[in-house]
Amino acid sequence: MDGYFLHLTRKIETIRRGNAPTTMLDELKSREFWRDVLAELFLTTTFIFIVTAVSSPIIPFDSTEGIVTRISLASGFMVAVEIQMLGHVSQAHFNPAVSISFAVAGRITPLRAALYVIVQASGGCLGTLILKSMTPAEMHGNLGANSINDRMTPIQGFGFELVQTWVLLMSILGCIDTNRPLFGSEAVGIGLTIAALNLAGIPYTGSSMNPARSFGPAVVSNKFDDHWIYWAGPITGGILGTLTYKYIFDPYSKALSYEQ
Amino acid sequence: MDGYFLHLTRKIETIRRGNAPTTMLDELKSREFWRDVLAELFLTTTFIFIVTAVSSPIIPFDSTEGIVTRISLASGFMVAVEIQMLGHVSQAHFNPAVSISFAVAGRITPLRAALYVIVQASGGCLGTLILKSMTPAEMHGNLGANSINDRMTPIQGFGFELVQTWVLLMSILGCIDTNRPLFGSEAVGIGLTIAALNLAGIPYTGSSMNPARSFGPAVVSNKFDDHWIYWAGPITGGILGTLTYKYIFDPYSKALSYEQ
Amino acid sequence: MDGYFLHLTRKIETIRRGNAPTTMLDELKSREFWRDVLAELFLTTTFIFIVTAVSSPIIPFDSTEGIVTRISLASGFMVAVEIQMLGHVSQAHFNPAVSISFAVAGRITPLRAALYVIVQASGGCLGTLILKSMTPAEMHGNLGANSINDRMTPIQGFGFELVQTWVLLMSILGCIDTNRPLFGSEAVGIGLTIAALNLAGIPYTGSSMNPARSFGPAVVSNKFDDHWIYWAGPITGGILGTLTYKYIFDPYSKALSYEQ
Amino acid sequence: MDGYFLHLTRKIETIRRGNAPTTMLDELKSREFWRDVLAELFLTTTFIFIVTAVSSPIIPFDSTEGIVTRISLASGFMVAVEIQMLGHVSQAHFNPAVSISFAVAGRITPLRAALYVIVQASGGCLGTLILKSMTPAEMHGNLGANSINDRMTPIQGFGFELVQTWVLLMSILGCIDTNRPLFGSEAVGIGLTIAALNLAGIPYTGSSMNPARSFGPAVVSNKFDDHWIYWAGPITGGILGTLTYKYIFDPYSKALSYEQ
Repeated sequence: MDGYFLHLTRKIETIRRGNAPTTMLDELKSREFWRDVLAELFLTTTFIFIVTAVSSPIIPFDSTEGIVTRISLASGFMVAVEIQMLGHVSQAHFNPAVSISFAVAGRITPLRAALYVIVQASGGCLGTLILKSMTPAEMHGNLGANSINDRMTPIQGFGFELVQTWVLLMSILGCIDTNRPLFGSEAVGIGLTIAALNLAGIPYTGSSMNPARSFGPAVVSNKFDDHWIYWAGPITGGILGTLTYKYIFDPYSKALSYEQ
Repeated sequence: MDGYFLHLTRKIETIRRGNAPTTMLDELKSREFWRDVLAELFLTTTFIFIVTAVSSPIIPFDSTEGIVTRISLASGFMVAVEIQMLGHVSQAHFNPAVSISFAVAGRITPLRAALYVIVQASGGCLGTLILKSMTPAEMHGNLGANSINDRMTPIQGFGFELVQTWVLLMSILGCIDTNRPLFGSEAVGIGLTIAALNLAGIPYTGSSMNPARSFGPAVVSNKFDDHWIYWAGPITGGILGTLTYKYIFDPYSKALSYEQ
Repeated sequence: MDGYFLHLTRKIETIRRGNAPTTMLDELKSREFWRDVLAELFLTTTFIFIVTAVSSPIIPFDSTEGIVTRISLASGFMVAVEIQMLGHVSQAHFNPAVSISFAVAGRITPLRAALYVIVQASGGCLGTLILKSMTPAEMHGNLGANSINDRMTPIQGFGFELVQTWVLLMSILGCIDTNRPLFGSEAVGIGLTIAALNLAGIPYTGSSMNPARSFGPAVVSNKFDDHWIYWAGPITGGILGTLTYKYIFDPYSKALSYEQ
Repeated sequence: MDGYFLHLTRKIETIRRGNAPTTMLDELKSREFWRDVLAELFLTTTFIFIVTAVSSPIIPFDSTEGIVTRISLASGFMVAVEIQMLGHVSQAHFNPAVSISFAVAGRITPLRAALYVIVQASGGCLGTLILKSMTPAEMHGNLGANSINDRMTPIQGFGFELVQTWVLLMSILGCIDTNRPLFGSEAVGIGLTIAALNLAGIPYTGSSMNPARSFGPAVVSNKFDDHWIYWAGPITGGILGTLTYKYIFDPYSKALSYEQ
C-alpha cells in the first residue's frame, strides 16, 4: 500500500514536473539535468568537507575507540543529511560507486553516471580544499586520507572494501525499493548503514566505500599509496551488490506492476 | 502522495484552527502570535539549559573524543526533542539564524522574526542562568561558552560556522519540504543533522550554528572574545543556504501546486 | 491527516476491542485492566534490569565520558524498546512520574495511576533483584543507585530533576498528540528524549526522572540518601510539564474535533 | 488504520506474488522457498562478518567503555541494515533463536525453521572465515568469540542470555504486529533493541542473543567453553518471549480481523 502510494506519488510528480527527458541527448539539453549535476557537486563537496574535518586531528586524538566512533557517527549521520537535503533532486549519490552501480542496473543513463562521477571526484577535491583553507598550516599534510591497516595486504584491503560496498548497495536498494511496504526514512536507514560499516571497518581500511571520499584527500595531500583499492573495491562491490539484489533476491521481479 | 496528505492536513488544520492572521498588525493582536513567541522563549531556555549543562565539566572531562561525542549527541537529540515538543506551535526555531533565514525566504513575517530573535537571545541567557543556579560556585566562570580553536584565525572560524549553518538550513528545508515524498520524522532528521555537524565541528569552533546558544553563556560569564563570529557566521550561512535551496535546487519551484 | 488517520484507527480499535470500561469500578472488573497492570510490572522490571545492569561496574569503568554515553544510549534506546513492546497495551509508562502526570491531566483514572505506581515501584525492586541474582557477591553494594553530584546541594538536585522531567513530559505529550501531523515513531522520539537528557544530566543527579528507577536500587542496596529528591523532583516536574502543555501551548485546545 | 493499510498491502502483495505454498512439501518445490533460504545464508554471513570484524582488535582496544559502545552500535545498526536489505524476502531472521521461536508461534513451518537454522549456523562460520581471510595471521586465535565474564557462573550467564532474548523477542513481536497503529521503521526499532541490550550486556556475557553469532567464531577458533549457554539461553528466552506476547499481552487476540 505504501508502494502504491509511492507509485501514485511518482505519477503526480511526473505530472507536476513535466516529462523527464528520454534520451541522453535530451538530457544534455534539459535544465533539470544540469541542476542535478550541480547538486551532486554541492553534495560531494559538503560531505567531504565534514568527513575530512572529523578525520583531521585539529585537537590530538586521545582514544582510538573514541575517534572511530566519532568519525563513524559523523559520516553516517552526514549521509542522512545529504539525502535529506537533495535526495529529491539528484537522488543524492555523492559516490562514484553508487552512480556506476545504478548505471549498470539501468536506473540512470551512462551519460548521467559519467557526469556524476566527474563532479563527485571534483567535489571531493573541493571539499578537502575548503577544509584546508580553514585549518592551520601544520595540519595540511594529511587531511583525512584513507590508508589500509599496515598489518593487512593490499589484496585483503581490496576484499574488505568490496564486501563493505556490496552490503551498502544491497541496503540502499532494499531501502528505496518502492514495491515493499516499509515505513520510516530512507535517509536515516542509509545513514545507519554507513555508520554500522564504518564502526566495524575504519580500523581495517578506513571504510571508505566511496572513491570520491578517498580521491579528494589523496589529491590535495598528494598521497596515492594503494589508491587503486579505493576505486576498484567499492566499484566492484557496488556492482556485485546491485546484481545480487536485482537478479537473485528481488521478490518483485516477476510481480505485476501497479499499473496492471 | 505524502505531500498531498500534508497539503490536506494543512487545509484541515486551517479549518480547525481558524484563519491565520494575514498582516503584521493582525499578528500583534492575535493570541496565537504571543503564544508562539512564548513557545520560542520556552524552547530556547530549555535547549540552552541542557546544552550548557552537557558542556560544563561538573565532573572533569577525561577524554577529548568522549566529550565531543557526548556533547554532539546530547545537542542533536535535544534538537529533536524541542521540535517534538512545540514544532506544531511555533515551528520550533530556537535559533536566530533560522528565524532570520525564514524571514528572508518569506516563510515568516519580519515582525515575527524580530520578536523570535529577541526572546531567543533572552532564552539563551535564562537557560544559562538556570544552569548557574544549580551548579557549584567554582564552575561559574565559563558555563559552556563557545570559542574557536586557538590554532585557527577568526576568519577561518567565521568561514567554518558559515559553511556549517549553510548545510544546516539546506537540510532543514529539505526535511520540511511538503512537496517531496519523504517518510520519517522531521524532528529526528534535523536532530541528526546537528549531531553530524557537531561531531565534526566542535573541535574547530564549538559548532554553534546558533547565535542564541553562544550569546547566553557569553553574557552570563561576560566573555565576548570573537563573539561576532557566532552571529555573522550562522546568519550569513543560514541566508545563503535558504537562497541556495529556494532559487537553485528546489525541484518544485515551477510545479503545479496541489490546488491546481 | 495523520491525525485523522489516527482518529480512524482509534475508532476501528474501539470497535475491534470492544468498549473500554467507563467507571473505575468497571475497570476493576475488566480483564484488560489487570493485563495492563501486569504489563507495567513486566515493563518496569525489564527496564530496571537493563538500566541497573549498564550502571553496575562488572568491568571497572575506565572513562567517565565513556560510561555516561554508554548508560545514556542504553537507557534511551531501552525506553524505545519498552514502548515498542507493550505501548499498545498499557501505554508503557513504567514511570510513576508519567502515570501521576497523566492522571492529573485526566488521561487515565486515579485508580489506574495508583495501581500503576504500586507495580512500577515493585518492578523496580524486582528488576534490581534479578540483576543481583546474576552478578557476583562483591558487586551487591550499589547496583546502580542514583545519587547527586557531591558538589551540588539537595535543593539544586531537586531542581535539576524537576526541570529534566518537565522537558520529558512536554516531549512525550508532543509526540503522542494525535492532532498534529507528525510522521515517525513515537517510541524512537521518546527514547531519544531520555538519551539527550541523560547525556547532559547523569553527572549532576544521575538523571533519573523516574522514581521507580531510583527506588528499586535504593531498596535492594538499602541506600536512601537524598532519596526524596527522586520522587519529589520528577513528579513535580512531570505535573508542571503536563499542565504547561495542556493549558499554555496546546494549539488544538479550542479546535474542532474530527468528529465535528 | 496503519494496520488496515498493512492488511491491504499484504493482500496486494499476495495477488502480485502469487499464492504462498501451503504445505511443507509445496515449500520444498517452490523457487521462493530456496531463495529465502539463500537469503538467510547471505544475511547471516554478512552480519557475522561485520560483528566479528568490530569485535576483533586489529588495532588494540584502548578503552573498555569505548569498545563496548562501538560494538553495540555496530551490531544494532547492522541488524537494521540486514532487515532493510532482505526483510521483505525471508523476514531477515539471521538468528536461530528467532527462527525457532517463530516456528513455535506458528509463524513459519518447522521445515523452514530447520533449514533456516542450518544455513544460519553455516553463515556464522562462513562470515568468520571471510574475516579470517582478510586479517593478519596473529589475530586468528579469537575472532570475536563470546565468553562470559569470569566473575559470573555459567548458570548466571545462561539466565542473562535468557532474559535478554526474552526482551528481544517481545520487542520484535511488538514492532511487527500489524494490528497496532505504529509509524516508523521496524528495521530501526529492532536495531535499537539490539543496541540497547548490547550496551548493557556485553560486559556480562557478550550479549550474543544469537546462537549463530556465537557458533561461527567458536568453530573457526575451536573454543567451545560454556558454549551451551549461547544456544540454550537465547532459544529458551526467545520461546518464552514469544509465548508471553502471544498468550498474555497481545491486545488483539480476541479482536475482529480486518476481513471481518
